[in-house]
Amino acid sequence: MSPPFEPGMVSALAVDVFGTTVDWRTGVADQVTDIAARYGVELDGGAFADAWRDRYLPAMARVNRGERDWVYLDTLHRESLEELLHIHGVADAFDEEARHRLVRAWHHLPAWDDAVEGLARLRRHYIVAAVSNGGFALLTRLVKAAGLPFDCIISAELARAYKPHPRAYQTVAALLDTPPPRVLMVACHTWDIDGARQAGFGTAFLHRPREKGPHRPADQASDTSSDLTVTGFDELADLLHP
Amino acid sequence: MSPPFEPGMVSALAVDVFGTTVDWRTGVADQVTDIAARYGVELDGGAFADAWRDRYLPAMARVNRGERDWVYLDTLHRESLEELLHIHGVADAFDEEARHRLVRAWHHLPAWDDAVEGLARLRRHYIVAAVSNGGFALLTRLVKAAGLPFDCIISAELARAYKPHPRAYQTVAALLDTPPPRVLMVACHTWDIDGARQAGFGTAFLHRPREKGPHRPADQASDTSSDLTVTGFDELADLLHP
Repeated sequence: MSPPFEPGMVSALAVDVFGTTVDWRTGVADQVTDIAARYGVELDGGAFADAWRDRYLPAMARVNRGERDWVYLDTLHRESLEELLHIHGVADAFDEEARHRLVRAWHHLPAWDDAVEGLARLRRHYIVAAVSNGGFALLTRLVKAAGLPFDCIISAELARAYKPHPRAYQTVAALLDTPPPRVLMVACHTWDIDGARQAGFGTAFLHRPREKGPHRPADQASDTSSDLTVTGFDELADLLHP
Repeated sequence: MSPPFEPGMVSALAVDVFGTTVDWRTGVADQVTDIAARYGVELDGGAFADAWRDRYLPAMARVNRGERDWVYLDTLHRESLEELLHIHGVADAFDEEARHRLVRAWHHLPAWDDAVEGLARLRRHYIVAAVSNGGFALLTRLVKAAGLPFDCIISAELARAYKPHPRAYQTVAALLDTPPPRVLMVACHTWDIDGARQAGFGTAFLHRPREKGPHRPADQASDTSSDLTVTGFDELADLLHP
């Protein structure tokens, strides 16, 4: 039996990025619509973003199961993009430059409204690390463009394993030189919370009702078991440092 | 023959930390003097800091030559601390807690006057990475405590090789997904500039006359060959973005 969670135990926050900190769905949908329009193609950016993201978990799982070697998230995005362009019958309309720009859409995404200020408040009390399956370079550019005040960036690339693989979380605790129970994982995906809990981290489920856009239900706190449940970084800061 | 250096080529700065960005010598000397005094020992903190740092390059070189496995900078500092306490005949005066605090002195060091503002200016135009032989956790805490506005932290720990080993620089270029000639190494040590140049980086020697304290000469631009020579981050920002 692990001891009950106490906010006072926490010394570092491991904060997920896509969905938790930035609104990937709006950001990707808008950029897809925009790039498609410039190439004279009418495309529902939102539906395209959804289908693209749907391919993300199974693609990562193949890497984690060892069915293929480590590859960058950019590479996974590029592969699933090729599939999607064929499915939509628009493969001929997009040249190499357009495909490159579409993949790079994932490098520039808007922060959720509460993220910049909430993280800045949390950073006064804790080491606050961005912990994501994005590549190190992608995350560095994304975090910079969105003005997110992280203390450091820890990419799955450093573990050569994607969350929710245990090695992804163990690498975070090792790099921060902090025991897992003193690291609080903050994430809006139940699979990430589950992975972190199994690695011995504290967990805060952050509910993002619009994370998957207006037509799909977001992950729910009731589908996982977390030490804390909050609706934003401001609420998390209130809870940890009232 | 590599093409002549052009500031316009640069897209990322790899910035050394100890000596270049923070004044390790004053920081360590003050903390050693202070901790020693609390334990009733009179110790010349400056001379102690010098002797401690003298053991740093040979200790790292043994790791880089493969004579021992990778170890943290904290571990190297602890080992050389034990030696020094014996040499000074004060080993009995310092308990485990004191030794721990002495090693952690390297985690909290003052930034040079020009560093915070100069880095903030450079960060508007470039990815600015802290690139140091310190461990990832050490660097994260040091950078946070000193308020240094880096975009990301790249520790030698990620390469499992210390600068000036080529792998330490290659890892920086790979993680930033940036070709070596587009990365500018900024450092006050000629051995770091030499290592970066050999790895194909652009180089800016930053002269810190007081880096080794008042009694020892600092590294000189004339002892290396660098693309740029500056006296502070403000001058570097003026030069790259007049």
